[in-house]
Amino acid sequence: VTAVLSLYETAVHSAWIDYNGHMSEAYYVLIFGYATDAFLDHIELDDAARRAEKSSVYTLEAHINYLDEVAEGTPVRVESRILGYDKKRVHLYHEMFRADSASPVAATELMLLHVDKSDKPAASPFPARTAEKLASIATRQAPLERPKYCGRIIGLR
Amino acid sequence: VTAVLSLYETAVHSAWIDYNGHMSEAYYVLIFGYATDAFLDHIELDDAARRAEKSSVYTLEAHINYLDEVAEGTPVRVESRILGYDKKRVHLYHEMFRADSASPVAATELMLLHVDKSDKPAASPFPARTAEKLASIATRQAPLERPKYCGRIIGLR
Repeated sequence: VTAVLSLYETAVHSAWIDYNGHMSEAYYVLIFGYATDAFLDHIELDDAARRAEKSSVYTLEAHINYLDEVAEGTPVRVESRILGYDKKRVHLYHEMFRADSASPVAATELMLLHVDKSDKPAASPFPARTAEKLASIATRQAPLERPKYCGRIIGLR
Repeated sequence: VTAVLSLYETAVHSAWIDYNGHMSEAYYVLIFGYATDAFLDHIELDDAARRAEKSSVYTLEAHINYLDEVAEGTPVRVESRILGYDKKRVHLYHEMFRADSASPVAATELMLLHVDKSDKPAASPFPARTAEKLASIATRQAPLERPKYCGRIIGLR
C-alpha cells in the first residue's frame, strides 16, 4: 500500500493545447485544480459539505515546475501528498505523470486555507472530521522522503 | 512615463468562472500567459519570429499569489516587469489588477527559457535584438523597488 494518494486522472483535452501542439501552462494548473478538488473530497470537505457548512477552501499561493511537454489525448494521473497542515491550512503537493511513466511532467505545491463564509469571509478551523483525516494522512506519509520540487525560490543564480 | 509595462488587458470570460461565481485558479494563469505572450511580442520574440527562427520560449517555473476574488465580466489589466535576465533566461513578474484598482488581485513570477528547436530542443541564447530590448527594459526598471510577491517559499511557519 503506497502512502501517496492517487485521486485524479484525465486525458488531455484538445481545448488545452496551444499553437505548438502541447498543453498550455494554465491547463496543468486546471488539472492540478481538479486533483485538489479530489483531495478535498477525500478529506470530507467536498462541495456539498462546504455548501452545507457555508465554508470554502481558498488557494493562497502556488508554485509550479513545468518539467515536460504533454500532447493532446495523453492520459495523465496526479499523485498527491501533504507536506504540512495546521488548524486552518494545508500545504499540498501534487505531481503529474503520463499514465505509463514514473517521471513527472509537472509538480506543484499549494497553500490552501479553510474559510468560513457564513458572514464576511474569515479563516476558520477545519471541521473535526477533516482534521482527523489530515492527521491520518500525515501519519501514513511521514516516512516518505521530501519531494524534489518543493521549498523552491525562483531566481537566476 | 512609467517603467512598468502595461501590455495586456481583458474582461473575465464566463468560461473562466467556477461554481462559486469567481474566476478559477487556472484562468489567472491563462491571463498571465497571455500577458507573457504580449511581453514576448514586446521583446521581438513574437510567434512569427519564433517560427521563422525555429525557436520557442518555455516556462520552466512559476509562483503565483492569489490575492483576491474576481467576478465574471470584470475588466482586468496586467503590469509586467523583469526581475532579471541572462543570455537565455528571463525572470518575469506580472501583477493583475481590476481596471479601477491599484491593489493587485494576483501576482506571479516566472522563469522563461529560450529554446532552439531546429534539432533536438536545447537552451539557446536570445537573438541580439531581444537581448538589446531586455537590457533597455532592465535599465528603465532598475530604479523600481523590488515587488512584494517575489522570492517567496511556500510553507507553514
